Amino acid sequence: MNFFDRLEQRISCANSLLCVGLDPDVAKLPEGMGIAEFNQAIVAATLDYACAYKLNFAFYEAAGVAGWKALEKTRRCIPSGIPVIADAKRADIGNTSCAYARAIFDELGFDGVTVSPYLGWDGLAPFLERRDRGVFILCRTSNPGAADFQALPVESESRTVPLYEVVAEKAALWNTHGNIGLVVGATGTAELALLRRKHPDLPFLVPGVGAQGGDLKLVMRDGRSLRPAGLIINASRQIIFASTGRDFGEAARQAALVLRDEINKLR
Amino acid sequence: MNFFDRLEQRISCANSLLCVGLDPDVAKLPEGMGIAEFNQAIVAATLDYACAYKLNFAFYEAAGVAGWKALEKTRRCIPSGIPVIADAKRADIGNTSCAYARAIFDELGFDGVTVSPYLGWDGLAPFLERRDRGVFILCRTSNPGAADFQALPVESESRTVPLYEVVAEKAALWNTHGNIGLVVGATGTAELALLRRKHPDLPFLVPGVGAQGGDLKLVMRDGRSLRPAGLIINASRQIIFASTGRDFGEAARQAALVLRDEINKLR
Repeated sequence: MNFFDRLEQRISCANSLLCVGLDPDVAKLPEGMGIAEFNQAIVAATLDYACAYKLNFAFYEAAGVAGWKALEKTRRCIPSGIPVIADAKRADIGNTSCAYARAIFDELGFDGVTVSPYLGWDGLAPFLERRDRGVFILCRTSNPGAADFQALPVESESRTVPLYEVVAEKAALWNTHGNIGLVVGATGTAELALLRRKHPDLPFLVPGVGAQGGDLKLVMRDGRSLRPAGLIINASRQIIFASTGRDFGEAARQAALVLRDEINKLR
Repeated sequence: MNFFDRLEQRISCANSLLCVGLDPDVAKLPEGMGIAEFNQAIVAATLDYACAYKLNFAFYEAAGVAGWKALEKTRRCIPSGIPVIADAKRADIGNTSCAYARAIFDELGFDGVTVSPYLGWDGLAPFLERRDRGVFILCRTSNPGAADFQALPVESESRTVPLYEVVAEKAALWNTHGNIGLVVGATGTAELALLRRKHPDLPFLVPGVGAQGGDLKLVMRDGRSLRPAGLIINASRQIIFASTGRDFGEAARQAALVLRDEINKLR
């Protein structure tokens, strides 16, 4: 079954467009608690309100082998039926991307992945060939450095458009299996609006609300899609570190509930 | 001590510009042999002829936790004095790239890393701030898909240049600690020649000779740098899988020796 169809089912079932980011910065974990234990508690607390989970690999890799074990364990503790995205921002030359796809989809069992477009088609193909998995291509990211390259004016088919637009066009072109989405940051709402006008059907994964300061109202107004799984909103720190005390689980649950409902009011 | 100074010392000591890529595709390992064991044998066999080693993370991650352990073990088995590069092609938003830098430099103890430019300055800064580590920014990669985005004509400072040239310009600009190099594939020798003319001092890490078909003669003629550590040539499959039989170590040693000498003849 197609990733976005599964995501749509879950969105409907949880009545939620909220993707919870499990980015367990070890410096912020409750005293004496390991990554996997923390994540399990967060998952149990937020399960009812999440349409998906997204695990940023950096925070696991920073803990070495123990972190990689926690990554595996966390993936396994999320019930099937809830899509789980590997926020790994991978891509390499073809035969190497094959190995990354095996790592993420087969070894770790993720349903979706984020990939970086810089290497072009053959760097992404090994991910895209997996028809039942979702592939979110970085398009317009949520950080200040997005301006350095993504915003550069590029000549493409006798027009001049920002690079991120060309990335979106290629993504639409390559989307023969209907398993491509874009990462579009909430901090660039004008860019998000433009991308949505041009690609009414492409699903957007939107980070950058919460800690990064993106405007949820504008995202929901201008990022709206024709399809139910066309817009999901990621929040990480805002939810998982809503409290750093012993009540972190309950605080995460509350934060997820509030954000889910806030998003739903704007749908 | 600066990464490129250490690399220069090693180049001089081993009389070699050859970086050996430890990309242990498990399907090709000798029967019954694990990744770390294989790598240890390859390192022992090629040690005399390598100016550096480069480990592509995909081939370790494809083996899950055991692969990550093999990555750690392999890094530790390479004697200090020989720079080891994490070919991880990472980058994310700032606070996440911090976690990747911790993973690669502190947890795993690598001397250098490859990074992807798409996220711009703040995605690279956490790596670049580590003055004693080398950071190779993907510029013009060796794969066919390099044409998709890297070659796009970009308007920059009232000229039109390919995107990879803008990446190189930014890299030169950001190189305040002298710890930046570029990844420039051997399969695009015209691009490599152009980049070298514009950046006589920037070190190039050149993959794509051997299995990918890059022209070593042209690379050595046009990639020449003013500085001794300005051009290193990576070869992976050509060396580590020179034989898939029991003699793989000796075959790797021979292949490394032959390639080192071939490179030296063209210096």
